[in-house]
Amino acid sequence: MKPTSTSGHGSAESPRKPSPRSVVTLAHGGGGQLTDELIADLVLPRFGNDALNDLLDAASIDVPGARLALTIDGYVVQPLVFPGGDIGRLAISGTVNDLAVSGATPVGVALSLIIAEGFEKRLLAALLDSAAATAREAGVRIVTGDTKVVGRGQADGVYMVTAGVGVRTARRLHPDQVRAGDRIIINGPIADHGMAVMLARELPHVQSALVSDAAPLNGLITSMLDASPGIVFMRDPTRGGIAGACADLAARSGLHVSLIEEAIPVRRETLHAAEMLGIDPLDVANEGKVIAVVRPDAVDAVLSAMRAHPLARDAVVIGDVESEPDRLCDLRTRLGGRRVIQKPYGEQLSRIC
Amino acid sequence: MKPTSTSGHGSAESPRKPSPRSVVTLAHGGGGQLTDELIADLVLPRFGNDALNDLLDAASIDVPGARLALTIDGYVVQPLVFPGGDIGRLAISGTVNDLAVSGATPVGVALSLIIAEGFEKRLLAALLDSAAATAREAGVRIVTGDTKVVGRGQADGVYMVTAGVGVRTARRLHPDQVRAGDRIIINGPIADHGMAVMLARELPHVQSALVSDAAPLNGLITSMLDASPGIVFMRDPTRGGIAGACADLAARSGLHVSLIEEAIPVRRETLHAAEMLGIDPLDVANEGKVIAVVRPDAVDAVLSAMRAHPLARDAVVIGDVESEPDRLCDLRTRLGGRRVIQKPYGEQLSRIC
Repeated sequence: MKPTSTSGHGSAESPRKPSPRSVVTLAHGGGGQLTDELIADLVLPRFGNDALNDLLDAASIDVPGARLALTIDGYVVQPLVFPGGDIGRLAISGTVNDLAVSGATPVGVALSLIIAEGFEKRLLAALLDSAAATAREAGVRIVTGDTKVVGRGQADGVYMVTAGVGVRTARRLHPDQVRAGDRIIINGPIADHGMAVMLARELPHVQSALVSDAAPLNGLITSMLDASPGIVFMRDPTRGGIAGACADLAARSGLHVSLIEEAIPVRRETLHAAEMLGIDPLDVANEGKVIAVVRPDAVDAVLSAMRAHPLARDAVVIGDVESEPDRLCDLRTRLGGRRVIQKPYGEQLSRIC
Repeated sequence: MKPTSTSGHGSAESPRKPSPRSVVTLAHGGGGQLTDELIADLVLPRFGNDALNDLLDAASIDVPGARLALTIDGYVVQPLVFPGGDIGRLAISGTVNDLAVSGATPVGVALSLIIAEGFEKRLLAALLDSAAATAREAGVRIVTGDTKVVGRGQADGVYMVTAGVGVRTARRLHPDQVRAGDRIIINGPIADHGMAVMLARELPHVQSALVSDAAPLNGLITSMLDASPGIVFMRDPTRGGIAGACADLAARSGLHVSLIEEAIPVRRETLHAAEMLGIDPLDVANEGKVIAVVRPDAVDAVLSAMRAHPLARDAVVIGDVESEPDRLCDLRTRLGGRRVIQKPYGEQLSRIC
């Protein structure tokens, strides 16, 4: 039996209180179906244009003399420092990776800080050190920035927003290039970032070997693109995880995407954390992973180039593209079944990046 | 006599409590001397490079085939809607203007949203409508974006961060081009934006005709640059106001900048609001103003081009550059005196943009 409220405060609907459907919820920021809904409802009808409607990791802008890419991402991860990284490393890696998977070479990064009053300068310095070290690692320059301060209780420590501009190569990487028979490759074990952050936040006293994979992938991606012309599309599976990226790939390519459960690498400690928290690793954000869609005859060349790079020693084929035009993604399970993989709804994983 | 605390809580220094100098304060975000200090202490030593060290409104990036400009700005204005504008109009205008005063044509804008849980979708829609309308007014496209949601009490409604990329023309607009004898021109009355926001926030029940000047200036600036090759530098005097922009100009040009109090246009209602709140209009943010440094023989051509544009009907010379290499800015007052104009410290005007 459901307990009833004696005060009545909980159930009385004030006419000024907005209904739950009329407000933004944490789940709208999870990078899942609800985020898509918010964007489809509120953003696209207002700003829609060719570049934006593509909704890829970076937008393409052609100007006389150059083909550019532009990307932006806000970082609100909590805790600010987590095993394997921090908000500074995340903010630079994320923007570099969005450009790199779009086939663009990053030429400049812009960094905006929103800081809560009372935030310790020493921690801010450490987070900026980390951003600077990550920028050096990626070989990109932070060329411009902005600093705003808000009152206590108006931000949770610090938020970082990074934008990046890149120069696109002649290669066109787009879901409309994807064909039946293409293979799906990943550079290593999934879900480390999201699970490291969730574990640090939800169970801070649990000891674990789990560390975030946050890293700039532009060097790896350049060597992949150099290795073969057979790469037709790439994506960094951040919010929404492998499930989100592959469900999107099926929808955008108009084909069927099939993943092989047994082939998808997941570390034991990551799986363990996911089980403890009741989360499917396929839904969990990665910050140092790239999914590449590769022509079958290019798989060997791409895999060997990847395995020569420290960020892709465990590169492996995890699925393929099939010809049914059902726009669905499924997982071939260890037990021989198939289950449909959907983009996560978004409610489980807030403030992961 | 100063009252003493009986409880002792107020004066006892806990070893864990950070000292006031070791934390970020609201004043660090005011765009004045304290913001400069934070950037000089924490940012430049970590990220320093030619493009960043320039600390101009947009960074220059040269790539094969194109000369680019990149800018980013966070918007945390409170209230979100104020007379004459809102955070959406501000976010687009600010980024467009930073590119335009750098002599760049905006080719794409990126918009990042950080939204507090529970924020009303209807208000979000209205703010995005305003951003979209401002982008149309400026003739720029919002090509990419990002949405994050944080908990209640972790953001104050919504923050917007916009980044913009532009293509620079052949004209080099830089403080090192400034020479003694150059004139300083502004396109209209000062301090409207900051005073409209402050009045709406601090004295919401006061009736006033005051409205923000927030507007995209790229059209005006193109017609100014087309009118004459004699424009050598431009700045949009946002946080820090005319005082901040002109003190900076003196410091960066290595010369003396002299402003004429009588010549600086201020609306009566703006002056009135500034007096009520005890603020110098010279220190107050503008969001639809441009300061141009112009060779003396180009003044007439630039002023007539400006006055033909709706956003510069009241364009006027407000000062000049003098030869003393003292790097100072002064104001020639109505009473015949001269007082040094410094960049504001930063404590009076938080969350103005």
